[in-house]
Amino acid sequence: MTFSFGTAFRIAACTALVIWAGGTQAAEPTPLETLKAGTDMVWLIAAGALVFFMQAGFALLESGMSRAKNAINVIMKNYCDMCFGAVAFWAVGFGLMFGANPSGWIGTDKFLLHAVAEADYGMLFFQMMFAATAATIVSGAIAERTRFSGYIVGSIIITGLIYPVFGAWAWGSLYSGEGWLKSMGFIDFAGSTVVHSVGGWAALAAVLVVGPRLGRFGPDGKARPVLGHNLTSVALGGFILWLGWFGFNGGSTAMASVSIGKIVLNTHLAGAAGAIGALAILKLARQPVLMTAAVNGSIAGLVGITAGCHVMEPVFALLTGFVAGALSVMAGWWMESRRLDDVVGAVSVHAVGGVWGTLAAGLFKTGALFDMHQLGVQALGCAVAFAWSFSASLAMYWLLKRAIGMRASTLDEQRGLDFSEHYEIGYPEFQQEAVHRGKQ
Amino acid sequence: MTFSFGTAFRIAACTALVIWAGGTQAAEPTPLETLKAGTDMVWLIAAGALVFFMQAGFALLESGMSRAKNAINVIMKNYCDMCFGAVAFWAVGFGLMFGANPSGWIGTDKFLLHAVAEADYGMLFFQMMFAATAATIVSGAIAERTRFSGYIVGSIIITGLIYPVFGAWAWGSLYSGEGWLKSMGFIDFAGSTVVHSVGGWAALAAVLVVGPRLGRFGPDGKARPVLGHNLTSVALGGFILWLGWFGFNGGSTAMASVSIGKIVLNTHLAGAAGAIGALAILKLARQPVLMTAAVNGSIAGLVGITAGCHVMEPVFALLTGFVAGALSVMAGWWMESRRLDDVVGAVSVHAVGGVWGTLAAGLFKTGALFDMHQLGVQALGCAVAFAWSFSASLAMYWLLKRAIGMRASTLDEQRGLDFSEHYEIGYPEFQQEAVHRGKQ
Amino acid sequence: MTFSFGTAFRIAACTALVIWAGGTQAAEPTPLETLKAGTDMVWLIAAGALVFFMQAGFALLESGMSRAKNAINVIMKNYCDMCFGAVAFWAVGFGLMFGANPSGWIGTDKFLLHAVAEADYGMLFFQMMFAATAATIVSGAIAERTRFSGYIVGSIIITGLIYPVFGAWAWGSLYSGEGWLKSMGFIDFAGSTVVHSVGGWAALAAVLVVGPRLGRFGPDGKARPVLGHNLTSVALGGFILWLGWFGFNGGSTAMASVSIGKIVLNTHLAGAAGAIGALAILKLARQPVLMTAAVNGSIAGLVGITAGCHVMEPVFALLTGFVAGALSVMAGWWMESRRLDDVVGAVSVHAVGGVWGTLAAGLFKTGALFDMHQLGVQALGCAVAFAWSFSASLAMYWLLKRAIGMRASTLDEQRGLDFSEHYEIGYPEFQQEAVHRGKQ
Repeated sequence: MTFSFGTAFRIAACTALVIWAGGTQAAEPTPLETLKAGTDMVWLIAAGALVFFMQAGFALLESGMSRAKNAINVIMKNYCDMCFGAVAFWAVGFGLMFGANPSGWIGTDKFLLHAVAEADYGMLFFQMMFAATAATIVSGAIAERTRFSGYIVGSIIITGLIYPVFGAWAWGSLYSGEGWLKSMGFIDFAGSTVVHSVGGWAALAAVLVVGPRLGRFGPDGKARPVLGHNLTSVALGGFILWLGWFGFNGGSTAMASVSIGKIVLNTHLAGAAGAIGALAILKLARQPVLMTAAVNGSIAGLVGITAGCHVMEPVFALLTGFVAGALSVMAGWWMESRRLDDVVGAVSVHAVGGVWGTLAAGLFKTGALFDMHQLGVQALGCAVAFAWSFSASLAMYWLLKRAIGMRASTLDEQRGLDFSEHYEIGYPEFQQEAVHRGKQ
Repeated sequence: MTFSFGTAFRIAACTALVIWAGGTQAAEPTPLETLKAGTDMVWLIAAGALVFFMQAGFALLESGMSRAKNAINVIMKNYCDMCFGAVAFWAVGFGLMFGANPSGWIGTDKFLLHAVAEADYGMLFFQMMFAATAATIVSGAIAERTRFSGYIVGSIIITGLIYPVFGAWAWGSLYSGEGWLKSMGFIDFAGSTVVHSVGGWAALAAVLVVGPRLGRFGPDGKARPVLGHNLTSVALGGFILWLGWFGFNGGSTAMASVSIGKIVLNTHLAGAAGAIGALAILKLARQPVLMTAAVNGSIAGLVGITAGCHVMEPVFALLTGFVAGALSVMAGWWMESRRLDDVVGAVSVHAVGGVWGTLAAGLFKTGALFDMHQLGVQALGCAVAFAWSFSASLAMYWLLKRAIGMRASTLDEQRGLDFSEHYEIGYPEFQQEAVHRGKQ
Repeated sequence: MTFSFGTAFRIAACTALVIWAGGTQAAEPTPLETLKAGTDMVWLIAAGALVFFMQAGFALLESGMSRAKNAINVIMKNYCDMCFGAVAFWAVGFGLMFGANPSGWIGTDKFLLHAVAEADYGMLFFQMMFAATAATIVSGAIAERTRFSGYIVGSIIITGLIYPVFGAWAWGSLYSGEGWLKSMGFIDFAGSTVVHSVGGWAALAAVLVVGPRLGRFGPDGKARPVLGHNLTSVALGGFILWLGWFGFNGGSTAMASVSIGKIVLNTHLAGAAGAIGALAILKLARQPVLMTAAVNGSIAGLVGITAGCHVMEPVFALLTGFVAGALSVMAGWWMESRRLDDVVGAVSVHAVGGVWGTLAAGLFKTGALFDMHQLGVQALGCAVAFAWSFSASLAMYWLLKRAIGMRASTLDEQRGLDFSEHYEIGYPEFQQEAVHRGKQ
């Protein structure tokens, strides 16, 4: 049997429901069952808290890679997509994704979750953090030239609709019914595809709709570097994301289990190998060993191992991470050559890393190495994720562009969105020019 | 029965004591009891570590909202109040708050805690972090013009005396006897009043005693903006505080339990709604949507849900947070109109948010919505917290002002406290002027 | 019986192995055993994640204490030693340290760990973070003038060889056999000596080999201050390190246990007392109360309590921390007087703090205060750690200097290593001069 995220989740849910659902159970839970339910919850919440903290990681990494005049706008987008997204996921997304799913296509209850067992609230908490991660991947890709209102509306729709619909196919349901992709045996333990590719393809759609930053590509079509204003922030963001990933992958057991040990070891090794893979490609290309590439490479490695961290031996986790890191650098070059302006490399890291990782979960599964049937299922899942997330997001951003506008005005972009959107300056004592320019 | 923080704590304590107290128990603990005691401790410590990290959140948020010339002084105050406060709470505060409390007014033993069961040390650890939180709330309010020595002495007295005395009324005792406020059925799960209002009212007293910063209010009495030097720090501080709150509220079960799921979900939703509430008020007032307001609004929401996170359904957590966020913005305007200079909005966020949250815990309790008797008890608790903390702190700061001085000299304030108090500059390569001015 | 890190570890390992090893066990694990194994793993992983985060703390602290032109190089060294070190420790280090150790001198199996029980992977994860900590201590000491490639090779050798060999003596083995130092009753619960002194002595060797920064000591031999560029980073790094220490010490139980409460309380008190001790010495010497000294003092306190946090009463934890903090300041003065340029005080904090802490574990053990035999064993352990780590590291760095070069060229050092090694600038909008100078 394929052990999957949803399966573990359902086991935990059932255990907890049996124990805690008021009035309907045949017998009192034993002290051991009560302790187990409490212990599982402790891990789920600790892991969920780590995933929450990834929002800070994204905010710092994306802000640090932007110019100072947009630093606050980038952080504000991360802060607000989490806030608005939490409400959207509580109201709509959780039900769509995990509610009873008779058709295999969409959840039909558990909206505005209330009056359920406390264990279910814990699961909503954990899943809410995943939904926020998927949505926030977009923000870095289209930093420095996107209107705040358009971004936030798009983010709410991703959290409440686009992400949970695909999630219902691959992970649903926690209650009854099974997503159609899951029933085919699709392996995606913690969401290389469900979270990262879905977010990454949405980011690609957004990049296409809003277009590149002013001056990012010269009249000759050549890319011009735009330097991030604070690489210390980038690095701290990378560390925080890495830390959060132990909760992201380890928490997807949804229970206290010795299997967490293997999962987080693989996670860590893949992150390390991702950085090494990115640096190796740069060395081969005779380019400088950039810290930003090491950070992005490690994140690509972490994205890559997310699908299969529970089924691989460590040596394959290293291989998965190494390839993911190397691919992310090359994908970044390709993006640039196509004049696609992705400020932080979100598409290269999350979409490309996610596709590779999902395939790797099929290739490197212990006991079934290079199983071609499994690989086919994995490839199908990746293709479906692209088809749904990219096209739904493209349509959404196109409509938002028409309806409320996605692109900041040229003047606002030049001044910086911190001033034009929020009337705040990130470092006022060190940006005199920006302040004065803003005030004219 | 009202389930409260202290009750849960005492249950856990008793379990642990029965199991671990050397020599006196009738029977060996069973393996299940031993595992339960270990599991509860794991959660208590993990949560306590998260609460510890809130000190970093406060330090960053407060420092970022100050000018660069005071950045290090602000952080140093946070660092040192934690260090000195830890010793003070170990020596005096824990005994006053949680020691045997025959009168209901004050604890009488467990000072200089030693030679007790290991479980008790775990509780001291967790409680020590709460005490540090209460004390550190003051530092941001009176940043940029307060003498270091006066601040630290005040902070020690809050941690060792003012906070634990009120705590004894609402949460005491872990050993024997019951605080008088607790015995009335006062609901304050994790400390909207006990920690946040007590700290917030102490901050108001401190603001009154030290007076506003030079130039904060013009000769016409109008407020002039003083911009924070590093809004990236502010945002990161906000994220860290939010993260810590999962330990703050979730850990207040003092045991591994499925109830943590509901508690942290409510916590998260209230934080999200707090940011939304603050932004909604700004929009209504046709003001820019400030990132600093979003951060402060979310913290107000978190403060607000702290009292009742264990007894509400999620929809009421959203409402509690939304109102807290909106109130914190309005309270900030009121403070400014009264020429009260609170650099980070500590009074608006912690005192006002804490009062509202304590009332909300009475209003929105599942199964007893809008219970007027409970609301009366809650209001009494809020009033008593104000009466005790504000007057005790006002007396203390007034005495400290006379005895060792609370207000920095005008010259020191102009130069910046980093230089005058610590002979350190936060960013020497980017503050050339400050360095040179300092050296003259 | 002396309860030690390795003992606890082996108990947990055995429990887990009995439960999980496929095919060989006589009986199915009971539900209680399964839950216990899962719970222990949860704590081990949560603690390991906190120790991982210490890498971010080191990166920020060390970077903040360096000049802006080297900020990224310092962080990159921390990021990369973790990545390369993870692979090295998986491949070689873990086997050397924890593999079957018939001689008491070195582990002989478990290299390239694969196909073992999931519990063993969890232990490798936890230990991998410790190894990374030992290695990264060097980076701050020799910041701002060391070549990247030489540093990374040295770091790999420390992680894969120097650290695990001493570790095998004091903590080996998890499988069979016992390290010779451990069999003498050497107490070093979480690694005052094994991790911190070993790292600190390696740092001293590195400082001797690379020599001081240009201009650090004048022609008259007097030290000239070189100011760190970002003290906010230093403070945040300190907070993160402190947070991580709860996992470092608390996780060294390797199981869920009430004893964690005492361990983390002692850890926290020692950190607090360390800051107070450092400030007290500065006050006595009529020097300013530096924030950097408070941070370093607290870290010295944390290093000091690491050996004996599980065997002391809180009052001795306070004493241990206080002395460690005071000693670290005095050791820093001594280093400066010997013209040893240690940018962050790594030797004073980790080596000196580690030696004192290891002795303190012998002096202040509950039930055996001032046991002279134990003290002798502790002193022997400290001496052996110095002899091995310092001489092995000195030989290694001397060879690396000959083979690939350890010292950056004068021109590169002047330009800053960010530009010369990575072609990246930390804060390009705020370092115009650096950017321009670099581009010529």
